[in-house]
Amino acid sequence: MTSHTDTRQIILDTAAQLFHHQSYTAVGVASICKQADVSKGSFFHFFKSKQDLAIAVMQQFEQQINSSLIAKSFTEKLSPLKRLEQFINELYTFQKAQMKAEGHLPGCPFGNMAMEQSTQDELIRQKASACLNGLSQHFASAIKDAIKAGELPKLNVKATADAMVSYIEGIQLLAKTRNDPELIRKLGPAISSIKIM
Amino acid sequence: MTSHTDTRQIILDTAAQLFHHQSYTAVGVASICKQADVSKGSFFHFFKSKQDLAIAVMQQFEQQINSSLIAKSFTEKLSPLKRLEQFINELYTFQKAQMKAEGHLPGCPFGNMAMEQSTQDELIRQKASACLNGLSQHFASAIKDAIKAGELPKLNVKATADAMVSYIEGIQLLAKTRNDPELIRKLGPAISSIKIM
Repeated sequence: MTSHTDTRQIILDTAAQLFHHQSYTAVGVASICKQADVSKGSFFHFFKSKQDLAIAVMQQFEQQINSSLIAKSFTEKLSPLKRLEQFINELYTFQKAQMKAEGHLPGCPFGNMAMEQSTQDELIRQKASACLNGLSQHFASAIKDAIKAGELPKLNVKATADAMVSYIEGIQLLAKTRNDPELIRKLGPAISSIKIM
Repeated sequence: MTSHTDTRQIILDTAAQLFHHQSYTAVGVASICKQADVSKGSFFHFFKSKQDLAIAVMQQFEQQINSSLIAKSFTEKLSPLKRLEQFINELYTFQKAQMKAEGHLPGCPFGNMAMEQSTQDELIRQKASACLNGLSQHFASAIKDAIKAGELPKLNVKATADAMVSYIEGIQLLAKTRNDPELIRKLGPAISSIKIM
C-alpha cells in the first residue's frame, strides 16, 4: 500500500522529471497524474495547483543539488579555485548522465523554469530567482576564500559570483541547444577567468 | 485591403511578439490568429504548422538582430574589444526598451526557444542552434581581430567565441529571472575577461 507521504513524493518526482525533460507548460496535471498513477483528487489533496507543484519541484531540486553537486564541490577540503573546477566536473557528469538516460541534455532545472515562466508567472520567477541566488552565494563564498588565499585579486565578490552563475547557466543553455555535454567540459574551466573589479 | 504578403508578415510579427513575451508552448495557433485578426485557413495557407512558424520567427529575429544589434556593434569602425562593449550596450538598450513596453524583461528569443524546445522539437533545436552559431561567428571574427591588434593574447578563437555567447545568454537569463535589465550593464563588460587558451 502506498502511504500518504509516498503519494506526495511520487507526484513530486514524476513532475520534476517531466518538467525537466519537457517543459512546465507542455506537461499538464492530467499527464502528471497518469504517469504517477494517482487520481486528480489525490493530486489536489497535496498541491493547490500546478504552480504550487512547480514551487515544490524547484525546492526539491535545490535540496538535491545542495546535497550532491554543491556538497561535493564547495567543500573546504578543496582549494577555493579547485571548488569551481569541481563544480564544473559535477555539472558535466550530471548532464551527461541525464543525456545518457533520456537521449537529450535537459539543462538547468532552474534556468529552464526561469526562461519559460519569468514573463508569465511571478511566483515561479521569484522562486527560480531565489534558487539561482542561493547558487550565487556558494560562488561568492568560494570567491572570498580565493581572495584570502591569494588565488584571485581583490574584486567585486557579489557581481563576480553573479557573473559566474550567469556563465554556468549560459554554458548549460548552449550545451542543451547543441545537445552536447562535452561543451560543459570544454567551456566550463574558463569560469575562473571571469572577474568584475 | 490587406495584401497576401502583409497577412504573412502580420502573422509572423504577432507570433514573434507572443512567443518572445510568453512562450512557444503557451501560445496556440488560435491565439495567434485571434491576435493577428486572421482566419485559421489563412494561417495554414502561409505556414504548414506552428513549428514551421517558429522556424520563420527565428529566421526573422536573426535578420532583425543582424541589421541592428550586430550591425551597430561588429563594425570595423570600432576597435575589436570596443565591438564587444558596444554589443553589451545594444543588448542592454534592447532588453530595457522591451521591459519598458511590456513590464517584463523577455530575454533572448533564441535562448528562450532553445531552453524550452531543445528536448522536445529537433527542428526547433537545430534552428536555435544555428542562430546561436551565427552569433558565435561574429564574436569569433572580433576575437581574431583583437588578437591581430594585440588587444587579446593568442587563444582558442572558436571556444572563446562560444564561451562569450554562453555568457551573453547567461546574463540575459539572470536578468530575465531577476526582471532587471541593469544586470546586463553591470555584468556584461566582464565578457572580454573570458579566455580559453
